[in-house]
Amino acid sequence: MKNITLLGATGSIGIQTLDVIRQHKDLFNLYALSFGRNVDKAVPIINEFNPKKIVVQDQETKKKLELYVRNQDILVGSEGMIEISIDTYTDVLVNAVMGSVGLQATLQAIQNKKQIAIANKETLVTAGHLVMEAARIHNVTLLPVDSEHSAIFQCLNGENQKEVNKIIITASGGSFRDKSREELQDVTVEDALNHPNWSMGSKITIDSATMMNKGLEVIEAHWLFDVPYDQIDVVLHKESVIHSMVEFNDNSVIAQLGTPDMRVPIQYALTYPARLPLSNSKKLDLVEIGKLHFSQMDYVRFPCLKMAYDAGREGGTLPTVLNAANEVAVDLFLQGKMSFVSIEKLIGQALEQHVTIPNPDLETILGVDRQTRLEVESYFNKDLVNKI
Amino acid sequence: MKNITLLGATGSIGIQTLDVIRQHKDLFNLYALSFGRNVDKAVPIINEFNPKKIVVQDQETKKKLELYVRNQDILVGSEGMIEISIDTYTDVLVNAVMGSVGLQATLQAIQNKKQIAIANKETLVTAGHLVMEAARIHNVTLLPVDSEHSAIFQCLNGENQKEVNKIIITASGGSFRDKSREELQDVTVEDALNHPNWSMGSKITIDSATMMNKGLEVIEAHWLFDVPYDQIDVVLHKESVIHSMVEFNDNSVIAQLGTPDMRVPIQYALTYPARLPLSNSKKLDLVEIGKLHFSQMDYVRFPCLKMAYDAGREGGTLPTVLNAANEVAVDLFLQGKMSFVSIEKLIGQALEQHVTIPNPDLETILGVDRQTRLEVESYFNKDLVNKI
Repeated sequence: MKNITLLGATGSIGIQTLDVIRQHKDLFNLYALSFGRNVDKAVPIINEFNPKKIVVQDQETKKKLELYVRNQDILVGSEGMIEISIDTYTDVLVNAVMGSVGLQATLQAIQNKKQIAIANKETLVTAGHLVMEAARIHNVTLLPVDSEHSAIFQCLNGENQKEVNKIIITASGGSFRDKSREELQDVTVEDALNHPNWSMGSKITIDSATMMNKGLEVIEAHWLFDVPYDQIDVVLHKESVIHSMVEFNDNSVIAQLGTPDMRVPIQYALTYPARLPLSNSKKLDLVEIGKLHFSQMDYVRFPCLKMAYDAGREGGTLPTVLNAANEVAVDLFLQGKMSFVSIEKLIGQALEQHVTIPNPDLETILGVDRQTRLEVESYFNKDLVNKI
Repeated sequence: MKNITLLGATGSIGIQTLDVIRQHKDLFNLYALSFGRNVDKAVPIINEFNPKKIVVQDQETKKKLELYVRNQDILVGSEGMIEISIDTYTDVLVNAVMGSVGLQATLQAIQNKKQIAIANKETLVTAGHLVMEAARIHNVTLLPVDSEHSAIFQCLNGENQKEVNKIIITASGGSFRDKSREELQDVTVEDALNHPNWSMGSKITIDSATMMNKGLEVIEAHWLFDVPYDQIDVVLHKESVIHSMVEFNDNSVIAQLGTPDMRVPIQYALTYPARLPLSNSKKLDLVEIGKLHFSQMDYVRFPCLKMAYDAGREGGTLPTVLNAANEVAVDLFLQGKMSFVSIEKLIGQALEQHVTIPNPDLETILGVDRQTRLEVESYFNKDLVNKI
């Protein structure tokens, strides 16, 4: 029996992780969970899984939750997240929070040799060199949960990483793949949240529409698989059936395919190196699908992807700026305060203003992260973007 | 340095195996080879690679070859093939002959614990249970060379075979994939030899047009990967880009893709578990290809595939009959003696007439093989088919 600690239990990945645990109660026990403020969503989860420890975002949420919960310790904030992540009884940490808030808990869990299933790509984008260095030192494998990275991880099964020519990440194109740059000017939050293939959280759905999600994935892949940026390609593949591919030095390409069901990569991260049946999951039927399409990525149409490649190549604190600026900009768009195309403007501005610090330590990264968020808000307040 | 013994050196797979050896002279040495009667094609190969031993089909060919070759032993027939296959200096046996003639050499090489790269699917179709039992007893891995089986083998890398749901073999559809059953009546040998994707020997090209090739591959996959027939699917995929796939119990599908270059699977069988660069091989470019198509296999349109499944499921000596009847029928068609659709008629007749012997030993198989060839010729002579 593996004790699982789940950060981000009420989010999209969190809910699907719980379904995997529910299907394999003989193997997995939800030992602890964290969530933000959504008490209504959290209470039934707590009642069903009866975790020993719970972490919430703030004291106010803790007070609300105490009306419903009697048997559990309720901890608060990032200190609470760290505490449950490194808890003696935690075997596996599933980091499914959104944004760079998961970084410190992940780093400390690695130092405590926990098995890590990582859905939180921002952690690797913002501090990949620190996370991977810690993983090497403590001999911890980071098991990817993102469907693309799980695909690559599966394609590398039994292979020698030195024989990899290229990683090919597929991109659905997001909600606006059929729109021109001109047509993007007037799109609404509602339009942007309507992803053609995957049902996901709102931040990642917007990131898919700007293609920043693919950019973050490129940086994540660089760190997880130790592959230079020149050997990471992105290909448009609107059906999202091939989740990603690896080309080897003999030109053989291995791909992982499936229906868009995040529970498959989540479960694989929990059961690796074994696989388990997953009920209620649709099998892939290529005959029913009929055709798979592939086309070239357009870096002019999707400037966020280019910014991510550039920031990744530059390294140092620049990916931290990319990620923090993106988090703030997407939030401003989701709040209806500015237009969709303003997202890329704010990020571009933040990248341009930043003087990269090479090889930053954790403190420097956290400082740059904070500073960037303030700066992006000041750009917004200074009317650099189209407010609504 | 690995000493390679190559059966079928002047055939399509043989020539491509030689190119792989040529590219890696630091790793591979052509120790011995066999060919049929094509002295003109063999002499330059012998001059280039200078093998220690040579086997030819008959005394007449031996005499011809002696005019050109002075430094080598020239052996004759299947005894010669067995001798070089089990030779102390042979490290790897590449069985690239056409038809069931490769069976005995393969069996004896397995008993002598040679590494086997098997391109000769007829060996596994006609006596799969004996070959795999010998491989188990002598702890020999059969390394597949067929692109589909190499694909499946690669997809199984690092995986647990018990977690396999299904093997999905792709089929290009062969030369006549766009023709109706009616249009097949008048096709010529030349039409049939014009395969849309792969450049191969004439027997396998005809087998692709009748879809018997896919049937033989299904039986081969059954034996190589120990998977029941109900868990082997065939899907039409006209681009031949996905060479085959494996679906696991978590519904995750792993696929191997590439351009149609037989040197990739040949080399993989020689270098396994490592991979090596392969020069002059075209990389797969999915953007250039644009679309991949998949459609349902039609067992009425392609009765040979259905016959193969049925013969495989029945087992015993029936696959031996299937294979022997097919070899004779294809030969009669290639000689221009009968129509294309007569191939399936002759095979159907042979299967119908045969009383299956369960669990046959080698002698029984060789007897049934000989007997079937005689019977199919007698059906032909009795005007059961449309002669030309």
